[in-house]
Amino acid sequence: MASKRKVCIIGAGPCGTSALFHFDQISDSATEVICYEKSDTWLGLWNFTWMTGTDEFGEPCHGGMYKHLWSNGPKEGLEYPYYTFTDHFGKAIPSFLPRPAMRDYLEGRLVKKSKSDIKRFIKWNTAVRYMRYNKKSDDFTVTTENLKTGQTFDTNFTHVIVAVGIFNTPDKPYFEGIETFPGRIIHSHDFRDATQFKGQRVLVVGAKYSAEDIALQCLKFGATSIVTSYRSSPMNFKWPVGIEERPLVKKIQGKVVHFLDGSSTEVDSIILSTGYKYKFPFMEDNLRLSSSRTLYPAGLYKGSLWLQEGNKKLFYMGVQDQFFSFTMFDAQGLWICRYITDTLPNKLTNCEEMKKEAQKWVQRCRGLKGNNEQIDFQADFIKDLSDGTGYSPDAPKANKFFHKWDSDKKANIVTYRDQQFTSLYSGIETAPCTKPWFQNFDDSISQFIKR
Amino acid sequence: MASKRKVCIIGAGPCGTSALFHFDQISDSATEVICYEKSDTWLGLWNFTWMTGTDEFGEPCHGGMYKHLWSNGPKEGLEYPYYTFTDHFGKAIPSFLPRPAMRDYLEGRLVKKSKSDIKRFIKWNTAVRYMRYNKKSDDFTVTTENLKTGQTFDTNFTHVIVAVGIFNTPDKPYFEGIETFPGRIIHSHDFRDATQFKGQRVLVVGAKYSAEDIALQCLKFGATSIVTSYRSSPMNFKWPVGIEERPLVKKIQGKVVHFLDGSSTEVDSIILSTGYKYKFPFMEDNLRLSSSRTLYPAGLYKGSLWLQEGNKKLFYMGVQDQFFSFTMFDAQGLWICRYITDTLPNKLTNCEEMKKEAQKWVQRCRGLKGNNEQIDFQADFIKDLSDGTGYSPDAPKANKFFHKWDSDKKANIVTYRDQQFTSLYSGIETAPCTKPWFQNFDDSISQFIKR
Repeated sequence: MASKRKVCIIGAGPCGTSALFHFDQISDSATEVICYEKSDTWLGLWNFTWMTGTDEFGEPCHGGMYKHLWSNGPKEGLEYPYYTFTDHFGKAIPSFLPRPAMRDYLEGRLVKKSKSDIKRFIKWNTAVRYMRYNKKSDDFTVTTENLKTGQTFDTNFTHVIVAVGIFNTPDKPYFEGIETFPGRIIHSHDFRDATQFKGQRVLVVGAKYSAEDIALQCLKFGATSIVTSYRSSPMNFKWPVGIEERPLVKKIQGKVVHFLDGSSTEVDSIILSTGYKYKFPFMEDNLRLSSSRTLYPAGLYKGSLWLQEGNKKLFYMGVQDQFFSFTMFDAQGLWICRYITDTLPNKLTNCEEMKKEAQKWVQRCRGLKGNNEQIDFQADFIKDLSDGTGYSPDAPKANKFFHKWDSDKKANIVTYRDQQFTSLYSGIETAPCTKPWFQNFDDSISQFIKR
Repeated sequence: MASKRKVCIIGAGPCGTSALFHFDQISDSATEVICYEKSDTWLGLWNFTWMTGTDEFGEPCHGGMYKHLWSNGPKEGLEYPYYTFTDHFGKAIPSFLPRPAMRDYLEGRLVKKSKSDIKRFIKWNTAVRYMRYNKKSDDFTVTTENLKTGQTFDTNFTHVIVAVGIFNTPDKPYFEGIETFPGRIIHSHDFRDATQFKGQRVLVVGAKYSAEDIALQCLKFGATSIVTSYRSSPMNFKWPVGIEERPLVKKIQGKVVHFLDGSSTEVDSIILSTGYKYKFPFMEDNLRLSSSRTLYPAGLYKGSLWLQEGNKKLFYMGVQDQFFSFTMFDAQGLWICRYITDTLPNKLTNCEEMKKEAQKWVQRCRGLKGNNEQIDFQADFIKDLSDGTGYSPDAPKANKFFHKWDSDKKANIVTYRDQQFTSLYSGIETAPCTKPWFQNFDDSISQFIKR
């Protein structure tokens, strides 16, 4: 008989709920699951909040999605094989979804495809304050607070899955003189509505996905001009009039920003689209993943199982940079679930072997060149997770969507969201957009599914 | 021989440093003191930061002071008897100080009047993650993190002084439809530079000191119009043209704000000057002060010693609403220091008697009517703390400054900072202002002390 397990899942975002979903499918009577979620709803970032800084309980705001955000990857690359977009919306829809429509799809999977009501596993408005691994008893003590009542609790668990996301802790660089800038300075984490920058000259610091998208958003909603500033290399898109790229900021003097190439310009607002860092303040140091952002952080077997402290009973979800996102989380949730419940064929248990295998992936990750190699790498990682778990997102086929998406972006950064794809699972071709993304200011579900 | 004591001070702001200052004066070899400060400098709020939301370590930003803030109370009511403003600046200066000048004075006291270098007690860039009281060993385990290295530590202490301030956790009300507002919404905690609102129509929600000051700041720096919105009663100042008061917000529809009196107006930005709440997320629930904001929170003997859990070895500083601020913190720091080091004459130890005495103050506090009664109440509280400690801020005389200040404000909210007072301790009359506050846009120390 299997020994009793008590599993703690921290966070009910897309990762935590994927783990919950699979525990529910396997429904093993020897396993008890509790999920702590600090807000009062699931799906994390996919909820819009008007707040910045701290939330209604004084906790750091989780939210990082802005009002007018549209998915920046084609839905065909993010689709659950057993719950397609056509299953959810009942008809063909365009490939790039506004935030509320994507949230609706994610929720549809959880509600319609779960065996039971998985909300019952979730303790809402509950923050994890601290967590230790107890060597003697080989378990974890998790200290939580009910944010509504202020009550604190210590609970012991045999396993912990950390699923708090990697978009909660802004990475904020310092530039000489930034404290003299009289305008508004925010991190993209606190970007809420592009119309706030209408008529302004905006500096966007950064050259990754969020810098690219926020620059476009600001232009779309009426900013006068946008200068983006890159550290290592420019994004090199064919930018529309109004957006230009410059090297890194050297210093700031009042409203004037000086760049490393000797040029300067005056701006009204600064948006630091400088990314996020791993941060797990609620854990002992030896349980914490510590790395710069990457597709394969070191120290994790199958990108999931923490190999240092915690006796192979501590797991991380979604800590890798993402192309496939939801299908990757789902494969990872199932793998972790099978690992914990001992239902994984050919389960490795030797720590040294695990380290060796993890090291191979880390090694390969370091050698990747360009987006296409990165996309294929993540597809292979998903395949590696899925082999033997019975899960079948066909990542090595879905990567073709991302290859095309990447070349669409290079061809035209303004129109790549207007392109069409064909679902791997339903075989249905995407509907064309009613309006090009750049001219479409209505992000509601109703306008999106109206055909 | 006295038993060994190990004292933890959490926070090196104006409160924590006052406690440190007095431990240094008493320099008792049986007492070891460690102060944890999460930033890399002391004096908390009195440092300006360009950041909002989270800081460079991803910790919630402490800062709540804006670039152009001037003290809103006369310096004569805040003066240390043994280190006057004239001692510090070497000449008579005006009564209301810009932020950098006030910080300079506070630092001058710590550096020039301490017996030794008190910075050596402080562990910088160190956040307290959790804290428990251990009944068995009658001590506290404080878990900290060195934010620079990520290392976590458990340290045991006999006594803990919580001095994290009460302006770190914004109280954010919700108004129907606020999520539809397309403009910027911030709490006053994240207000940094009033010029960001130049040319805008601003809604300031609130009717206390920060609402009053932020409305004036916005007008001073060029906002087009400011509407303030009160919950219980209007501030009723003689506002200059451009500022008006309305009852509470009823709902928000896009840019249009509707008030309870049926009126509505369109605004570009919303500033929630709705105050702060007590928040001590790093402690077990039974150690936490929990109250609405007041001049005398229940559960604290002498407004300082926590009477529930912790066996009379846990102290709070500066958790009361403040008029006198620095002299009150100083009296409190000395009282706590004498209490811990057993150098307090007629020290009460019986918990029931303490509770009874605390209850009397809480009772009296509830009956207070108007600012003058509140000012006198706080003066009496400081006197009560000081009796027998050897400290002599003459609060019952200093209250006259606040009485006059209150009537100056009622007479003219724009000019009250241009008034002059005479120091209780140096006997020197304040210098007149070189420029009226409302026309003075230079907040530097150099212009301020230039005569």
